Amino acid sequence: MVHIVLKGGDVLCADGQVRQTDIAISGSVITQIGTITEQAARIIDCQNKLIVPGFVNTHTHAAMSLFRSYADDMMLMDWLKTKIWPAEENLTSEDVYWGTLLAIAEMLKSGTTCFTDMYFFMPDVAKAVAESGIRAVLSRGMAGVAPTANQALAESENFYNEWHNAAGGRITVMLGPHAPYTCPPDYLKKVTALAEKLGSQIHIHLSETAGEVADCQKQYGKSPIALMEELGLLDHGVLAAHCVHVSPEDITIMKQKKVRVAHNPGSNMKLASGVAPVPDMLKAGICVGLGTDGAASNNNLDMLEELRLAAMLHKVHRLDPLAIPAKTAVDMATSQGAEALGLGKITGKLETSYKADITVFDMKEPHWHPRHDRLSLLTYAASARDVHTVIVDGKILLDNQQLTTIDQERLTAEADRRGMRLVNNSNTK
Amino acid sequence: MVHIVLKGGDVLCADGQVRQTDIAISGSVITQIGTITEQAARIIDCQNKLIVPGFVNTHTHAAMSLFRSYADDMMLMDWLKTKIWPAEENLTSEDVYWGTLLAIAEMLKSGTTCFTDMYFFMPDVAKAVAESGIRAVLSRGMAGVAPTANQALAESENFYNEWHNAAGGRITVMLGPHAPYTCPPDYLKKVTALAEKLGSQIHIHLSETAGEVADCQKQYGKSPIALMEELGLLDHGVLAAHCVHVSPEDITIMKQKKVRVAHNPGSNMKLASGVAPVPDMLKAGICVGLGTDGAASNNNLDMLEELRLAAMLHKVHRLDPLAIPAKTAVDMATSQGAEALGLGKITGKLETSYKADITVFDMKEPHWHPRHDRLSLLTYAASARDVHTVIVDGKILLDNQQLTTIDQERLTAEADRRGMRLVNNSNTK
Repeated sequence: MVHIVLKGGDVLCADGQVRQTDIAISGSVITQIGTITEQAARIIDCQNKLIVPGFVNTHTHAAMSLFRSYADDMMLMDWLKTKIWPAEENLTSEDVYWGTLLAIAEMLKSGTTCFTDMYFFMPDVAKAVAESGIRAVLSRGMAGVAPTANQALAESENFYNEWHNAAGGRITVMLGPHAPYTCPPDYLKKVTALAEKLGSQIHIHLSETAGEVADCQKQYGKSPIALMEELGLLDHGVLAAHCVHVSPEDITIMKQKKVRVAHNPGSNMKLASGVAPVPDMLKAGICVGLGTDGAASNNNLDMLEELRLAAMLHKVHRLDPLAIPAKTAVDMATSQGAEALGLGKITGKLETSYKADITVFDMKEPHWHPRHDRLSLLTYAASARDVHTVIVDGKILLDNQQLTTIDQERLTAEADRRGMRLVNNSNTK
Repeated sequence: MVHIVLKGGDVLCADGQVRQTDIAISGSVITQIGTITEQAARIIDCQNKLIVPGFVNTHTHAAMSLFRSYADDMMLMDWLKTKIWPAEENLTSEDVYWGTLLAIAEMLKSGTTCFTDMYFFMPDVAKAVAESGIRAVLSRGMAGVAPTANQALAESENFYNEWHNAAGGRITVMLGPHAPYTCPPDYLKKVTALAEKLGSQIHIHLSETAGEVADCQKQYGKSPIALMEELGLLDHGVLAAHCVHVSPEDITIMKQKKVRVAHNPGSNMKLASGVAPVPDMLKAGICVGLGTDGAASNNNLDMLEELRLAAMLHKVHRLDPLAIPAKTAVDMATSQGAEALGLGKITGKLETSYKADITVFDMKEPHWHPRHDRLSLLTYAASARDVHTVIVDGKILLDNQQLTTIDQERLTAEADRRGMRLVNNSNTK
């Protein structure tokens, strides 16, 4: 029994072509793409609308939305030490719940149907995911140098056992060792052993800044990528965030070990981390998805902006206007993002038997005219605020720009109150 | 008599501070900023809204909006020769009118109150500006190598005499020699003589690509900037678009001759032109505004996107997170942009006696929460689609997201029809 039909939209099909057609959804999946004559509980008129796979955000720290605009235009370590870390010390589990919900609201309203999180108080993150209806891949961030190092391992194991494949399969769990510079080799070996025991994959920050790569070379005589290979970490299915400063040798290892990359152009630009060699990675056949990173370092969670930056940054950096064409950027934000999370058979494509994770753009505004090429319009001209309808796992979570599972007014009031409290407390320190 | 009051908004004042206060408008100007108790024909509740000077777009080719998404991800000369130039040959004066109106609609809806245009069929551009109510600085583009070279000079003179300071002062006119590589020295001398005769300023493309700078060096033994100085062109008040490939010596000349720069980060990224040394120009005390360039090479006319790119691109290019802070980027999009057009005493600031050119952002969406710093939110998190109200010259042109002087539905239908015709014609050539 068909419960939703999207009628007459311009659909980005799995073959990369845009065609005017219908989509039928039954339960949580797409059951047909083509002319649908069947009745349905809900028929959505999609004339003059562009229908694309929901965006997949492969790297963020959702609850950091509470620190959005708190501290910008600063040197990284100054920003962390004087602003972010002191403020984070004040975070309660309730703050993390509300901060995550704020991030989810923003992501749904800008067309994201699946995100990847690494933070703490993860059961509260999972609760926000479960309640809101979005899809997510969650990791308890672990720092081997912190006093909570062993506690983080234990929490990760419990969190995996409790939440992996929970919420009707919408939540999957990975282990989240923060980075080689916060997790010494002995600790990473424990993480690897735990991954082996649980059969879980790993989400980690690798080679974000030139400084950390130089330190790693100095301390261990090899790059972070090569060090991870030596420790056996790369044998467990790794999602590596950033990979800005990777060498051709690193890329060879990454390809061989099937490392998937979360590229965060907005964060890399704003924090002045550098430009990742994404065209080289793609040429090597490495899977590269896109991520927003946390709202404190971006400062929004707009995947369309990341998609556009991916298409534009590498052109100017390589002085090559063909560096990352529109179609490649769209793939990175959707199907490659899903692959990067190990969900390539589940989401990221509009195809029969895939989960109904769908974003519908309204094309009425002037910047969508004339329409010579819809993928080009999406990549270079559209706004995430043109997102009209968002469906996740067959449920409508954004209906004509209104959230259906989240009370936006209450949420933003809570976020304002909590954001101010966190910062005021940290300022008095 | 006060005719509009903006009540209780968060106002970006001329001193760079954001304060909650009121703004009174009488006729075309701001008459008071502070607590207003007077009655007014229209009172707009601006609680939870951010009020900023309207954005000033210092460089575009408005009617090229008809070629939006027609050809992307191509080499520059290939793009021009096989796509844009053949399509432009089909343009009629009516197409230019409708293409300009499409651009104006998009600009108003994204908070731009003044734009700078260089194109042809300029009386039709002026008609669209006059009817829509926006402010503009217009130039008839002139190419000395084209068969229309002398005609363009005559048209420029007529256009200046007819339209400079027209539409209640909303339109000013500059001369628009296209670039040194399309205007040989003899022709530029004629342009300079005409500028002298009329007392007009000059809008020109300078040093956009490395190739044109190399060619200029080869042909004339000096850079485009040095060549323009030699020809006396820089003595007439020059707005120079791009200035991507300028040397320290060029920057010294630019400072000395008070050249103002239109920086177009989006176009420079997408066309892979390179990264302009904007931090060096600003440090030298050169006035730098922001521009979108034409929609065929951007592909939208969203000044907030340019503002954000200006803040982010130079950070990653210089590996310096302090390169262009939020406040500087906002200044470039507003007050410096107005200065660049010679309108620094007219627009670009919220100050008593300035023209009421004002953009009001609605801060209700999740990406505006929490609000630790409103300028940071505007620069790094906001969307141009959050623009709620736009006032130009004291008239409300966008009222609760609705255009008041343009029939959007008719406009987009016309634009679609004309855009398709232009391209179909050019394809059969």
